[in-house]
Parts: sequence; structure tokens; C-alpha cells
Amino acid sequence: MGPGGPVEVLLGYLIMKKRVAYQGIKGSFSSMAASAMLGADFEALTTSRFRDIFEHVTSARADIGIIPIENALAGSVHENYDLLAEFNCSIIAEYYCPVQLHLMATGLLAGGVNELRQIISHPKALEQCSQFLEAHPLATPVQFSDTAGAALHVKQIEDPRIAAVASEEAANTYGLQIVAHAIQNHAINSTRFVAISARPESLNTPSKCSLLLTLPHAPGSLARILSEIAAFDTNVTKIESRPILGKPFEYKFYIDIESFKQPAETLVKVIEKIKSQTAGCRVLGIYGNY
Amino acid sequence: MGPGGPVEVLLGYLIMKKRVAYQGIKGSFSSMAASAMLGADFEALTTSRFRDIFEHVTSARADIGIIPIENALAGSVHENYDLLAEFNCSIIAEYYCPVQLHLMATGLLAGGVNELRQIISHPKALEQCSQFLEAHPLATPVQFSDTAGAALHVKQIEDPRIAAVASEEAANTYGLQIVAHAIQNHAINSTRFVAISARPESLNTPSKCSLLLTLPHAPGSLARILSEIAAFDTNVTKIESRPILGKPFEYKFYIDIESFKQPAETLVKVIEKIKSQTAGCRVLGIYGNY
Repeated sequence: MGPGGPVEVLLGYLIMKKRVAYQGIKGSFSSMAASAMLGADFEALTTSRFRDIFEHVTSARADIGIIPIENALAGSVHENYDLLAEFNCSIIAEYYCPVQLHLMATGLLAGGVNELRQIISHPKALEQCSQFLEAHPLATPVQFSDTAGAALHVKQIEDPRIAAVASEEAANTYGLQIVAHAIQNHAINSTRFVAISARPESLNTPSKCSLLLTLPHAPGSLARILSEIAAFDTNVTKIESRPILGKPFEYKFYIDIESFKQPAETLVKVIEKIKSQTAGCRVLGIYGNY
Repeated sequence: MGPGGPVEVLLGYLIMKKRVAYQGIKGSFSSMAASAMLGADFEALTTSRFRDIFEHVTSARADIGIIPIENALAGSVHENYDLLAEFNCSIIAEYYCPVQLHLMATGLLAGGVNELRQIISHPKALEQCSQFLEAHPLATPVQFSDTAGAALHVKQIEDPRIAAVASEEAANTYGLQIVAHAIQNHAINSTRFVAISARPESLNTPSKCSLLLTLPHAPGSLARILSEIAAFDTNVTKIESRPILGKPFEYKFYIDIESFKQPAETLVKVIEKIKSQTAGCRVLGIYGNY
């Protein structure tokens, strides 16, 4: 049987690399999170918009998408929570990516960072460095779709008065010099990334679930739900209320629940219990940590 | 007795205008929130940094500060929550400011908004218009310290390819033309502002309190607190967990509680009850709504 026969087709299918959609280019935190969760052997489908990732995943152009969902300093990425609610896909893994943000340029200026005119990066990265930016008001913060793309842009325009905020990997990849190290507001910093898929199958042993709850604005409704959750010896690792635009008397909540004992089994029981208490429970995923 | 005598000094003191610190200039949402809460008759002390507002208030250079704390689309302003925790001052009133964000420039271009090169505004305003910005990738988003300041800047540079995102009042104040109306991600949008003071005296009848709680990462600790709150026939209108950097086994929570019956009295009882349950309860304020 020659090449292209049924066996080759089958082999090709079996060894077909996973197609992974994420925002940014090499050196972006999303690309680092993708490698941490999926290893090096995948086909990258890079985008500049989070919405594109969800469209790739739900239209089968990508097997997996990688999105940032929460940063220790800048808080939740509400856009991605809204997209998780809008699209029919599930969280299948999570990864806490350590984030050190460095200021990088094509060279060092005689007057140091005070001579910078522009500082370019992703808006969430700029937000994490707000104290540094406030202390350097002569440098205008300019938003870019991703941190590594900002580094590449700074390399391309070759003006040493224009700097990017990005990872050390981006500085190395695009040949930039770090002119100020770890400029984020707090030395300890991380961004929580999740892998999403159109098929709700956890990539590893599940230990956590993420829910989107809609609750009436009535005394005790949230307390009752949380008591039910606590009764299963589980822990709420994140909770956040969000107004429902146009519905002032209802709230939605993002809740993450972690189970210590027989995780997957316990989580399924907790979800069943919550569903019996409220009509508005959407399971965003049951998944494990990397 | 001539001018400058004791009676004049006393009268001058009695009619002395309140000094109010806020971010931005005329036409900023902060200035609109200040007017809504305090009327027109105050002395404005405008700043470009939130930290300055807290420093003015705690060093008695200002009687009241006005800060944004939460936006319906972009979520909590964590920087101001962190500053509330850091400085010794209290929330004394709140106001939900309707926010319509318009795109404005010195004139209309032949090719319309597609010819724009830069869109300038406060980072939280740009975040609320993320869908419009994504749909117009040729215009670079540039951060400015406040929306009205961005409008003034656009007026001053007089380049019709550079636009600002700001309020209708800013367009009128600085003589700019609105080139796209209400470009925020959702038609309904508001920002919650709070007034802060070094003296914890509510500006009007209190109906709400804001607490910062530190809880051990243990099953049920939050459920217990919320059950206590519900027992007083009060309602949790906001809850948000935040990691404590460097302490992975503890969480802090922002909680807002609203009371329906005998508000101030009930809120004080709820706070006493919560304080008896956890060592880590900081009262950010007991205040009313405008």
C-alpha cells in the first residue's frame, strides 16, 4: 500500500497535532500557558481578539483555546467570562502562570527610563504596572493587543524612547534589552489561564468546577447556596457578583468550587444540589490544575 | 469692628466651601459625580492620580474625595479598593453615575471613523469600549489619566485623525464633535462613585455598608458569615474574593450589605456580629445612596 492509503490516513489522523488557539505571538503569556498545559507539540492558531478564540473552538477550527481569566493584581477578565457565558464550550484545565512584567526597549537611554515617550503593552499588563506608569507621567501608555506583539513592535520601530512591557521570554525572542525589571505593582503576580474546548472533557484529574449562577436579589439566597456547598466539605476559591445589565433586581455570580475528597464525584453532587436550588446555574467546566 | 475681625473670621469659616478632591477636569465623570452628591457649591481640587485623592483627604487638604469604585461593564476598580484598605478614611456616600461614552474629534473625516489613527481615553473607559476598539484595529488605543482630559488634549492637538472617548459634557465643554455615539459595549452602563472622608460621617441617611473581610481558606467560613448577614434580613449587593498576595491560604473579600429595615441600626448590629466571628473585618464605611 503506497502513501495516502488508508493506513497512512489513519496514522495521520492519530498523530495529528492538536490545534490550539490563543491570543498573541511567541513570548506572550498565553503561549507560555499553552506550553505549560499542552506541552510543545501543538499547532498554534494565534489571534488578536478573545472572541476569535471562542469562534475557532466552537466551529472546530481549533481543538482547544487558551484564555486568561483572572490576574492577581488586575482582577477578573470580564470579557472572557462574558464570552464563556455566550459560547457553548467548557473549561477543561487551568494553569496559574507566574507573571513578571519587564520594561524593554532597543537600547538604554542616557537619561534612563525618564526619557521614554511611550510605553506599549496589553491593557491588563499596563493595569498591573499602574504605579510605575503613574511615577513616569511623561511616557504615554499605549494599548496593544498582546504583550509579546508590543515587544516585536518596539523592535521594529527601533526608537529607543518607545518601550514595551512584556515577559523576559519576549525580550529574548525579539532581541530587546530589559531597561527596568519586574515593574508590576507587587513582586508576587500570576495570571490564571484556562483551556477551553467544545467537548467538556477535563485534560487531567478534575478538582475544581466553575459555575455561573443567576440569583434573585433576595436576602439569604447566596448564603443558602454557599451553605449547601460547604456541606460537601468543598471550598469556594473564587466568588464574584456582577450586575445583570438591564435587570437591576437580579445578580449573576461567578463561583469556583474546589473539592478535597473524591473530587470529580463530589463536584458533580454539589452541582446537582445547586441546580435543584436555582434555575440559573450554568456549569462552565469541571477541570484540573496544571 | 472692621473686616478681618473675629465675626468675619467666624462667618468666613461657617460659609467656607467644602474642598473636594477628584480625578480629572470639568466634563469628567468624577466631576459629574461630585456635583450629583455635593451640589455645585464646592472648591474643586483636581488630580491625575487616585492616590493623591486619598493623600489630600487624610492630610486635611480636602474635606471630601470622590473616587470610582466599580463599573457595570469593566468591574471593580481594584486600585481604589486597595487604597481604601491602605488609608485611614471612610466611605460617606455613593452615587451610580450613568455612563454613555462617545467618540469625539475636532471634525468628521471623509472616511469616517475608519480613518482614525488614535483613540485616547482613561483605561477603564477604553475597556468599556473594547468591542468598538476591536472592530477598528487601525486606531491605536492610547491611555490618558481621565476622559475629559483626553477630550481637551484632542482639542489642543487639532488632528482630526485623533479622537477621544468621553462624556457628552466633555464634548460640549471642549468644543468637539461627536463622531460616534454611545460606543461602550452595552447600552446600559454606569459607574459607581463613592465619596470618602477622614471623618466617618455619612452625608445622608445610611442604608448600606462596605466591609473588607479576611477569611481563612476553609470550607464554610464564607457561608457562615453570609448566613449571619441574612439572619438580619439584609442583602449582599456585592461580593468579590481577591487573593492576598503572598498568602495563598487566605482570601480577602469585598462585601456590600444593604439593609431594608431601620438601616443604620441594623447595619451596626450586622457589623458587630461579623466582627465577633472574624478578626479580619475592616469597615470601609456606612453610608447612603444619592
